[in-house]
Amino acid sequence: MGNEGEAEIPTGVVTRLFLDAALAADAVVPLTGERVHYLRNVLRRASGDRVGLFNGRDGEWTARIDRLGKAEGTAVVERQIRPQTPEPDLWLVFAPIKKARIDFVAEKATELGVSALWPVFTRYTSVTRVNTDRSRANAVEAAEQTERLSVPRILQPAKLQAAMAAWPGERRLLVCAESGAAQPIAQALEEAARDATAAQGAWAILVGPEGGFAPAELDALRKVATVTRVGLGPRVLRADTAALAALACWQAILGDGSLRPPDRAA
Amino acid sequence: MGNEGEAEIPTGVVTRLFLDAALAADAVVPLTGERVHYLRNVLRRASGDRVGLFNGRDGEWTARIDRLGKAEGTAVVERQIRPQTPEPDLWLVFAPIKKARIDFVAEKATELGVSALWPVFTRYTSVTRVNTDRSRANAVEAAEQTERLSVPRILQPAKLQAAMAAWPGERRLLVCAESGAAQPIAQALEEAARDATAAQGAWAILVGPEGGFAPAELDALRKVATVTRVGLGPRVLRADTAALAALACWQAILGDGSLRPPDRAA
Repeated sequence: MGNEGEAEIPTGVVTRLFLDAALAADAVVPLTGERVHYLRNVLRRASGDRVGLFNGRDGEWTARIDRLGKAEGTAVVERQIRPQTPEPDLWLVFAPIKKARIDFVAEKATELGVSALWPVFTRYTSVTRVNTDRSRANAVEAAEQTERLSVPRILQPAKLQAAMAAWPGERRLLVCAESGAAQPIAQALEEAARDATAAQGAWAILVGPEGGFAPAELDALRKVATVTRVGLGPRVLRADTAALAALACWQAILGDGSLRPPDRAA
Repeated sequence: MGNEGEAEIPTGVVTRLFLDAALAADAVVPLTGERVHYLRNVLRRASGDRVGLFNGRDGEWTARIDRLGKAEGTAVVERQIRPQTPEPDLWLVFAPIKKARIDFVAEKATELGVSALWPVFTRYTSVTRVNTDRSRANAVEAAEQTERLSVPRILQPAKLQAAMAAWPGERRLLVCAESGAAQPIAQALEEAARDATAAQGAWAILVGPEGGFAPAELDALRKVATVTRVGLGPRVLRADTAALAALACWQAILGDGSLRPPDRAA
């Protein structure tokens, strides 16, 4: 997409790193793990180079790399360039299928601004384990590249029925449904946009596995008071496509679709 | 996504094949190429098994496999199960980056209902060749799996400036823009939805390369009378994510988002 080459991005700040340390002027923060290798060997960065840092709490700061060893290093925080701002509270609840698809969903859902990803196991899903560390790493990388100031949480994988039984009552849930009655997604979102409580509330999107839900799972879903079944048109989408389509529509109509990316050239 | 296991899909009709031959009752149509291998060796189909056939013109028909050799075969067309219906006229114009991404975009854009894919080369794109046969094959496979009755055309790759200079005047063009002035995409689409001429007209979505457009390309874009620059929120999306997000919003708000998939169980 076009940054349009209107001006140069200040050297170094194009590289953004997520870390856990508190960020404040003159703080010395540790650089650890994969990102040290990445900075040193892929980006060829060295002491004195500048990076952007964010931790999901303190906004984004510039920092100078102070020391960059083989396995760890330090950076000195300079000044805040963006304050932390509130982000939409939108979960994606999805039934993972294959490892490559989970990576893909974690990456794209992060780009599309989810606040949490919740892998759920369903009756007709053969996957019974999710590497949440790996999903987390994909989400961190996508957040670094997409100008987010946060990284979505990866919630503890659970069985769908248990997840629905423990559903947080006030969180509205859109269930993408290919068969049976469903409201067109744009209509459901436009109605919600006209209702201030709904528009500012907590939301989730659930995309089932391609094999569909089992009857007991459908029962569990019906018991969630905040469920709306939504349709995504006449084409049968793969589960990952459905997830991205629903997230994109949500952000455009009900989320932060009217905001603009930060101007790196400023 | 949920077919919800409400009823069994009739045996065989779950496999849909796209071909070029005319479809009419009792017609004998040739089965050729990759799909013969796929039917025989992957799906283990044999003479007498039933498949669904569509060609983008005659709706969908059931057919019985008559003969299935190693490299070719024939099927006998039975009856029409879905008429051909009009589909939204939405092009995706995109600057390809890597082979895997092009495959991905062809697949997902087909699921999201584009009528044509137009690869364009830009000043800041290093890719200078696109294997359109390969994109076509990805589109065919996605169309077969997504219940479409058509396969998007793959337009002849061209330089962006030439494509814009020859732009079909009546086709509205949404340009996904990360910087500079832009209207939120939902707002632009909702306005168009209230204008019958716009809502029923021909459209295209253009997503530039991640390196942005060159000044001469921006000039060429400005000369297209039907351009609207649209924004997709505060996150900087990868080009493929931006394409899918824009297509999903277009279909939900202006396209066929209120239609439902066919009921295979009927």
